[in-house]
Amino acid sequence: MDTTNAIDLADRIRIVLVGTQHPGNIGSAARAIKTMGLHRLVLVAPQKFPHNEADMMAAGAEDVLNAAVEVATLAEAVADCRLVLGCTARSRRVQLRELRPREAAASVRVEAGAGGEVALVFGRERTGLDNDELQLCHAAVHIPANPEYSSLNLAAAVQVLSYEVRLALLGEGDAPPAVIASANPEAVPHAELEGFFAQLADTLDAIDFHKGRAPDSAMRKLRRLFVRTGLDHKEVRLLRGILADAQRMARLAGTRDAG
Amino acid sequence: MDTTNAIDLADRIRIVLVGTQHPGNIGSAARAIKTMGLHRLVLVAPQKFPHNEADMMAAGAEDVLNAAVEVATLAEAVADCRLVLGCTARSRRVQLRELRPREAAASVRVEAGAGGEVALVFGRERTGLDNDELQLCHAAVHIPANPEYSSLNLAAAVQVLSYEVRLALLGEGDAPPAVIASANPEAVPHAELEGFFAQLADTLDAIDFHKGRAPDSAMRKLRRLFVRTGLDHKEVRLLRGILADAQRMARLAGTRDAG
Repeated sequence: MDTTNAIDLADRIRIVLVGTQHPGNIGSAARAIKTMGLHRLVLVAPQKFPHNEADMMAAGAEDVLNAAVEVATLAEAVADCRLVLGCTARSRRVQLRELRPREAAASVRVEAGAGGEVALVFGRERTGLDNDELQLCHAAVHIPANPEYSSLNLAAAVQVLSYEVRLALLGEGDAPPAVIASANPEAVPHAELEGFFAQLADTLDAIDFHKGRAPDSAMRKLRRLFVRTGLDHKEVRLLRGILADAQRMARLAGTRDAG
Repeated sequence: MDTTNAIDLADRIRIVLVGTQHPGNIGSAARAIKTMGLHRLVLVAPQKFPHNEADMMAAGAEDVLNAAVEVATLAEAVADCRLVLGCTARSRRVQLRELRPREAAASVRVEAGAGGEVALVFGRERTGLDNDELQLCHAAVHIPANPEYSSLNLAAAVQVLSYEVRLALLGEGDAPPAVIASANPEAVPHAELEGFFAQLADTLDAIDFHKGRAPDSAMRKLRRLFVRTGLDHKEVRLLRGILADAQRMARLAGTRDAG
């Protein structure tokens, strides 16, 4: 993870919000981009800015708000950019190449890595970007939302795109993911482990495993171990059988002590 | 893009919000998950719900809110789940395996695809999940945020995770085909397990677990179970400590029998 490099590249990336109506959304967007290591915000003709709702929603990202640049048109906002990507709900109005967020982020990384200025552009809450504005974009970015309910909140869209950009800058954009699932497709549901854990705790007491130490630590480790394993029914039965015999031995031993 | 299948799998995925303080965040989370094609929301002891701020922020996702299930504890919320992933800021308190969102989403897809119920769990706005709650999780999910400002809004975190889950369900998540075997990156090499297995076999004899049955079958199953788990050094030591006490009890019990 080359964090230094990611920071350098972030200097070449601006998030452009066009005609934002609700100042709270500007604050939320500032917070979203800062969590993802970006910091350059450009506001094209915001309806209300500065505004206390923006400050409130920024919640620690006021530095991003304070450094935000305000301009009158998108053309000004992206005048020096070599790559301009417009985030839109799917649009048939303008025939732009359409990228997925991950593709867009990879493009951002390549362009910024080559020394170019890059803009990610987000339109108005209700109406998005108009045709003239889309003409300024090299490609459109489409978040593959639920077609029956695709209205991401503005800050949510900024969060998703910024997240993908961060992964790309950290070089984690195309790493194939490791998968964990319960390592056992027959694993019992969580609740069924509780009986086993209770018996395990009783057994540790019975065999005097703790010897005065707090029992919580050992049980925590054992829970983690067996939850991770994904025990199936037969395995739970097998382990409980072993515990039952250990408990039986402890009773016999106790009888001896008592006798 | 197999949308039908994605919808089916979404039926097995629940988003669990624990102890949410601001009802507006519940509404925003409902909106976030609906935009990503998910619909099952479980609320663990929300501070205020139902609430008009939740309805306001849901903005068209009221159906998700209305169908939300309210329960008192996380244990209830995930009782029937085979995979429980807890979204946390990086935590050193509990040693859970930590997944990136993309890995978590791939795991969700594999588990739901195998018919399992899956939960993605989000903690309180300020304090996250407590230790007992983390104990119920198979792994932690960490969004790789800016280390100097990592405080994603609750709904933003839900949005990012739901987005990755959607990509995974649509088959766009770059998921590798197979599940990785070792659930523990710190697992000891296989050979080091042999001492543990030898002691386990001795203990089963000592506590008279086999009762005349052939010992091979039980040992084979136990080997499979613990190899799959991927025990680390500390865990091997912990388990051998338990075995030693069980053996001690068996000796005491045997002394009684002999005496």
